[in-house]
Amino acid sequence: MRVAIQGELGAFSHEAAKRMLPNSVVVPCPRSVEVFDRLARGSVHAAVIPIENSLAGSVTEHFDLLLAREVFIQHEFRLRIVHNLIAARQTKRSELTHVYSHPVALEQCRDFLRRNPKLEPVPFYDTAGSVKHIIEKHVPRAAAIASRQAAAAYGGKILQPSIEDDKQNFTRFFLISKKRKIVANANKTSIAFRLKNVPGSLFNALSVFASRGMSLSKVESRPIRGHPWEYVFYVDFLGGDNELSRSALLHLREISDLVKVLGVYRAA
Amino acid sequence: MRVAIQGELGAFSHEAAKRMLPNSVVVPCPRSVEVFDRLARGSVHAAVIPIENSLAGSVTEHFDLLLAREVFIQHEFRLRIVHNLIAARQTKRSELTHVYSHPVALEQCRDFLRRNPKLEPVPFYDTAGSVKHIIEKHVPRAAAIASRQAAAAYGGKILQPSIEDDKQNFTRFFLISKKRKIVANANKTSIAFRLKNVPGSLFNALSVFASRGMSLSKVESRPIRGHPWEYVFYVDFLGGDNELSRSALLHLREISDLVKVLGVYRAA
Repeated sequence: MRVAIQGELGAFSHEAAKRMLPNSVVVPCPRSVEVFDRLARGSVHAAVIPIENSLAGSVTEHFDLLLAREVFIQHEFRLRIVHNLIAARQTKRSELTHVYSHPVALEQCRDFLRRNPKLEPVPFYDTAGSVKHIIEKHVPRAAAIASRQAAAAYGGKILQPSIEDDKQNFTRFFLISKKRKIVANANKTSIAFRLKNVPGSLFNALSVFASRGMSLSKVESRPIRGHPWEYVFYVDFLGGDNELSRSALLHLREISDLVKVLGVYRAA
Repeated sequence: MRVAIQGELGAFSHEAAKRMLPNSVVVPCPRSVEVFDRLARGSVHAAVIPIENSLAGSVTEHFDLLLAREVFIQHEFRLRIVHNLIAARQTKRSELTHVYSHPVALEQCRDFLRRNPKLEPVPFYDTAGSVKHIIEKHVPRAAAIASRQAAAAYGGKILQPSIEDDKQNFTRFFLISKKRKIVANANKTSIAFRLKNVPGSLFNALSVFASRGMSLSKVESRPIRGHPWEYVFYVDFLGGDNELSRSALLHLREISDLVKVLGVYRAA
């Protein structure tokens, strides 16, 4: 089974893909749109995408793509994000002067960097890509911050494990595919909807769920192209493929310009 | 009056600052936290920050900082974002091979880049910074995509104006300061609140406004550090410093763990 991810081999998406589908072949893509393009033309069977980090927030580009493309969420997975200081095998910790990583990862290791003022942070496009870069380009006196998987992928060694400031650092991933498949024990649904631009419309939309005693676990808003200051809302509610969910969605359709079910799956 | 912005001189924040305060001296800061630090220690009188773009969405870091720091929104301004192709005076359009800009600006000129396949996009940390870079470093055969203000700031010439794909491209800016000042004709309020983690809590919070016939113009959610999958909500409502707003906020405080008024100002 071929699974597309955005980013280099060794990215956190790679780790999440291996945890969800241990025997899959991971296909790295430079950009998120390419992940969705590969799914559309069938050159991969599935894709694994990060949707939300418990510190950095939503991966908004992926919300937009879930709405725009014909894909369906099959599975949800929560990965604990562990950042490691990684260097080439011959590099000594004491000689380090620079540390490369994605700006979000550098930000999440701010206390570590404060305790190690000799290490100058260098922003790079990708966490795993920064390991690949310092090792393949033989960058002298350099380390990178990335996953354990990245150290393994490029033959680096971990000089210091788990250097992230906040251990409550998790990323939610979705396994997505073109097929609209719902597992028997599904208990969570992700939807997107667009409301008529009238006062109280979001309140009315949420009343669809509140009046049925249904819990929401996430609400996100994203702008609509060509309609400044209007929004699409993304909601996750606790409810599977059953009568209650169906009547709630029918009710929501009455008061919305658009409702799209992004997936019905088992909550992580 | 000294006004801090994030980014280089010539950034869109520079343009917004000049439109709101024509006689101000703009103080560029590399990072957003430095903008807020300067405000805190009084080395600037005010700051201008982008909060939301009609295509790219919210500037989430600024939502987080508005909540964390003791600042108050004084004014709202909407700037039409016009991207221009800018090069050094001696550079000819026909010889261009590379175009530098911030990834968001490159993304917003995708149709232009598709029509000009000889121009290879090069992601750069800042729009105005990309103009500064190609001109001051004499990068051969290179152009940059940035504001008219950036061309003026670094002595570049505009080879082609208004190359953005979507003319419905606006950014909302806030003028913020340490002083809690409310203008007489204020009619809009920005707040942040944190709810008790019980089912229906967001619905109940929105009922505070809906039951009083008050309109919301924006709802945003952001994660809470140390509390994975819990959120702070940011809401803009149409209402100034009056009895109705005060009773709504009192009501909201009854059902929230935290309510912070970020500003009461005149809607743009």
